[in-house]
Amino acid sequence: MKIFADRLVAAIQKTGNPCAVGLDPRIDLMPAFMRSGRGTPSRDVVRSIICEFHDLVLDVVAELVPVVKPQLAFFEQYGIAGMEAFEYTVASAKRRGLLVIADGKRNDISSTAEAYAKAFLGSTDVLGQRQRAFDADSMTVTPYLGRDSLLPFLDICRRECKGLFVVLKTSNPGSKDFQDQVVAETGRPLYESVARMIHDLGGNLVGDSGYSSIGPVTGATFPEEARRLRELMPRAFLLVPGYGAQGATGRDAAACFNADGLGAIVSSSRGITYDYPSPDISPENFSSIVREKTLRMIEDVTTSIAARV
Amino acid sequence: MKIFADRLVAAIQKTGNPCAVGLDPRIDLMPAFMRSGRGTPSRDVVRSIICEFHDLVLDVVAELVPVVKPQLAFFEQYGIAGMEAFEYTVASAKRRGLLVIADGKRNDISSTAEAYAKAFLGSTDVLGQRQRAFDADSMTVTPYLGRDSLLPFLDICRRECKGLFVVLKTSNPGSKDFQDQVVAETGRPLYESVARMIHDLGGNLVGDSGYSSIGPVTGATFPEEARRLRELMPRAFLLVPGYGAQGATGRDAAACFNADGLGAIVSSSRGITYDYPSPDISPENFSSIVREKTLRMIEDVTTSIAARV
Repeated sequence: MKIFADRLVAAIQKTGNPCAVGLDPRIDLMPAFMRSGRGTPSRDVVRSIICEFHDLVLDVVAELVPVVKPQLAFFEQYGIAGMEAFEYTVASAKRRGLLVIADGKRNDISSTAEAYAKAFLGSTDVLGQRQRAFDADSMTVTPYLGRDSLLPFLDICRRECKGLFVVLKTSNPGSKDFQDQVVAETGRPLYESVARMIHDLGGNLVGDSGYSSIGPVTGATFPEEARRLRELMPRAFLLVPGYGAQGATGRDAAACFNADGLGAIVSSSRGITYDYPSPDISPENFSSIVREKTLRMIEDVTTSIAARV
Repeated sequence: MKIFADRLVAAIQKTGNPCAVGLDPRIDLMPAFMRSGRGTPSRDVVRSIICEFHDLVLDVVAELVPVVKPQLAFFEQYGIAGMEAFEYTVASAKRRGLLVIADGKRNDISSTAEAYAKAFLGSTDVLGQRQRAFDADSMTVTPYLGRDSLLPFLDICRRECKGLFVVLKTSNPGSKDFQDQVVAETGRPLYESVARMIHDLGGNLVGDSGYSSIGPVTGATFPEEARRLRELMPRAFLLVPGYGAQGATGRDAAACFNADGLGAIVSSSRGITYDYPSPDISPENFSSIVREKTLRMIEDVTTSIAARV
């Protein structure tokens, strides 16, 4: 199998855009046709609702975008039913040819980090048999525990041709609390130290495309910073969440791309799946709206990249 | 229900020690009697192995210690079977009167952070019914996303009388990469900024015991730093992992306690559950060893605290 970065570049070139659709199961925000007549919300019912909803979305977006990003928190809030739906959603998206980013912002030290890497990217030995748990194409992790906490993930990325996105800079007010703190030694914000580490670690996982399978997660609402990060990590793919609902525009996101028009993935979740006019919408109209919102995002992002390059 | 900090203090006073047993399911490290004659490792088989193993451990430790700390990574590596075992393990421990720390080092921003808090501490609305997903007594989270990322957890802790442990200082080599970086504004290491935030946020969740339900996770292998952190967060309970296998001793951990002999929980995982002489050990001898290792840890930790106070 090709290295993750090359698979990502190929998928972006095939679809003609670098957009990701976020899958955040929130039953309370779903259309009435998904929720009504279900009876008692048993484990089976909850799992079915989430799986059916995602299949409806995937039916539309699989032909339009290269990547989907299921957010683990929203699955975990539904307990085992949610995790069964997560397993199903990852498999369903991969079966349709989509690349999957498991967004769980995991990490820990030594063998615990390795267990997370096995869970979402690799396989686990079970009584002499190697079993895959959730088997996404890539995952998100946090940086606070430092370089050696990331190494078990890199090992599995190398062996399994998977990818890693390390949280670097977020778009919330609290990003100033630690991420923006100026480090005495460098005179630069802390997140730039994280960027240097990502660039350094990613050097061993560069594909034929010239891009690395290791990149940062960076909010789209700080375009000046995005340009600086682009310089610090020229070979990295930036995962840029927060398009739409979190206020970022295509123009903001465009700063995250290289001159070749590659180097970032722009992700929208609620703006695609939960932005419809009335709970009483029909399944057909819901699908149309998901298609329309996705196409509008693709148009905005690709136009903004082209205008910038 | 009493606030988490007060429940914790009561449990420590009842058992006479502040020790936690870590539950890290690793089937490959379990005794042969747990693994043999199981046939194909189906989902049911994997779940049964982990549940039975933890019941064996809980049967011994429930009378000895106040707290258990299941580590989510090791459950997640077994996929749905592992998560079913996690759900069972949390419930089984609580049924025996133990307090449970769900160690998953989660976090994200806004509604995503809220979903994690619902998943592990609160409840989720499902078709008008409030359902609890994993329902631990407390959980671990990461600080990198800043103050507002922690607020949804604090809200649920307040409403549900639950507790929160924020990763502050770890014992791995990579802890120097970001945690130890001196911040220009304060002239102090970054982790002290995290400590100040924990102290500040914890002020709203102080119980009759004088302790807060919000504390840090801090490695036991840096005792000088632990003393400094004790000063910065006098009302916090420090969660101190890494006793035993990661090299920390009772004497190291003692620096994490206040003069009243309270204010920290010392946790050991592999040193309790996977430190037996031969894979061919009998169930009875395995239980004896778990008891012996737990008692030895309790003796070491309580003696060290007493010697220091």
